[in-house]
Amino acid sequence: MARKFLVSVIGGHECNEKTAKLAEEVGRIVAEEGAVLVSGGLTGIMEAVCRGSKRAGGLTIGIVPGKDKNDANDFVDIVITTGMGHARNVIIAAGTDIVIAISGEYGTLSEIGFALSQKKPVYGFGTWDIPDIIKLNSPEDLRGIIRK
Amino acid sequence: MARKFLVSVIGGHECNEKTAKLAEEVGRIVAEEGAVLVSGGLTGIMEAVCRGSKRAGGLTIGIVPGKDKNDANDFVDIVITTGMGHARNVIIAAGTDIVIAISGEYGTLSEIGFALSQKKPVYGFGTWDIPDIIKLNSPEDLRGIIRK
Amino acid sequence: MARKFLVSVIGGHECNEKTAKLAEEVGRIVAEEGAVLVSGGLTGIMEAVCRGSKRAGGLTIGIVPGKDKNDANDFVDIVITTGMGHARNVIIAAGTDIVIAISGEYGTLSEIGFALSQKKPVYGFGTWDIPDIIKLNSPEDLRGIIRK
Amino acid sequence: MARKFLVSVIGGHECNEKTAKLAEEVGRIVAEEGAVLVSGGLTGIMEAVCRGSKRAGGLTIGIVPGKDKNDANDFVDIVITTGMGHARNVIIAAGTDIVIAISGEYGTLSEIGFALSQKKPVYGFGTWDIPDIIKLNSPEDLRGIIRK
Repeated sequence: MARKFLVSVIGGHECNEKTAKLAEEVGRIVAEEGAVLVSGGLTGIMEAVCRGSKRAGGLTIGIVPGKDKNDANDFVDIVITTGMGHARNVIIAAGTDIVIAISGEYGTLSEIGFALSQKKPVYGFGTWDIPDIIKLNSPEDLRGIIRK
Repeated sequence: MARKFLVSVIGGHECNEKTAKLAEEVGRIVAEEGAVLVSGGLTGIMEAVCRGSKRAGGLTIGIVPGKDKNDANDFVDIVITTGMGHARNVIIAAGTDIVIAISGEYGTLSEIGFALSQKKPVYGFGTWDIPDIIKLNSPEDLRGIIRK
Repeated sequence: MARKFLVSVIGGHECNEKTAKLAEEVGRIVAEEGAVLVSGGLTGIMEAVCRGSKRAGGLTIGIVPGKDKNDANDFVDIVITTGMGHARNVIIAAGTDIVIAISGEYGTLSEIGFALSQKKPVYGFGTWDIPDIIKLNSPEDLRGIIRK
Repeated sequence: MARKFLVSVIGGHECNEKTAKLAEEVGRIVAEEGAVLVSGGLTGIMEAVCRGSKRAGGLTIGIVPGKDKNDANDFVDIVITTGMGHARNVIIAAGTDIVIAISGEYGTLSEIGFALSQKKPVYGFGTWDIPDIIKLNSPEDLRGIIRK
């Protein structure tokens, strides 16, 4: 058995070009390190990180709030529809091995709170200034963190 | 029809005497203003606020994470068991009219994030320093906020 | 402490006049026996049972799938919005003391399954023919079942 | 983009040898047809179907009720922990493209109800006798149903 290592990436529905580029790099490294990417599967940070992972040959899972598979961005391989709205955040935040927060608004904050309340490690790039988030400077820093 | 006004109070499982006293006052005012108190139904802030509400003749609802009604503190009239664990936070945070955050740890932070992401007004007493939380100085300030 | 006894009533969004009348009687008896009525808060059976309870002076809680309080029917005192869609069925089915199923379609079937999987007693009026549902002939039969 | 086709298999925690053999065959065919297997990730039918899929080189996702990755059986590649208890059934039942029910108890019944209430196609092998379940005689019948 080779259980996959799962990485959740959380972040906002919108992002500027610079943040999108960062998210793409994060996605690429997740893929290169052999981990599976889990996200909310929609636009913004979610789309950028999936794009980065796919281009590096990775596997991407999108856990979307609605019931329609087509809500997911084009870079999601596996779309799990929940019909649960924001409650699906709970799964993204606490259902995987580690969480990476990039920028983000209140939805991301709720996910950070969930993850930390359940002792999941949360790594951050330019996100909420919350104690216990481990701030990283470069996506390359993730290489030592993601277990192959 | 006289739809009830619902107030969620969120906060940690543990609290010191001073914070418990504040929470009791909040509960009392919620009851005096004719609103229904919704909380996680457990210990700490949740228990103190329910006690305050009950002593003032109010109605209290506890939405507990487990499946056992007896998990609720003694001041909860209506125990709704969810078996959903932390996912029940979503309902407490976004299922009522307003949210009052008192102190609190990461579970409370997740609820604040949820509430704000869904545009619910969040009032705070000594809680996380998050923009859009309306900080209050005294429980008495709630009187103008809770609609009868 | 006088913890309230909670009764969930489940059933379809639509119902004919005869079934509505039955649901109203069920609601009335729930109220007369001093229990709190919990339902999905919408139309059909849900509305009829709430109407029956309200007219008898009872307290009614509606746990609605969406985010809008106004989705609830006029006979719901306490509207808890979940934004969780059908996942809120889990709470209605397994979050109270007993479940009463009246008629119903697949949503009701899912709630029956949930309730029975968690050993909640399910009483039925003209609903799915599932073992372990306790079939009742008249709403009056509920009087001995609902604890005051 | 080649979006994956997702197949949920639902069934009980325990199963006899004959049913386990059937579930293994179902798992194998899901894999051979290029689909991803989604299940509750635990024992019984869930384990048998995952075993069948893995042995045929397929990809398996287990959406488990608790918070511990080790709750999943050895044939799950991707474990998503939910901490949501039975509420995770909603996702398994309605979050994928098709549902296959094998035998099963009340938990399975709840999933069937959810799936059908959301118009998901449900295929059955020796499971609950519910209208709209499409009964199949042999796992081979699935080949025409699972899109590559």
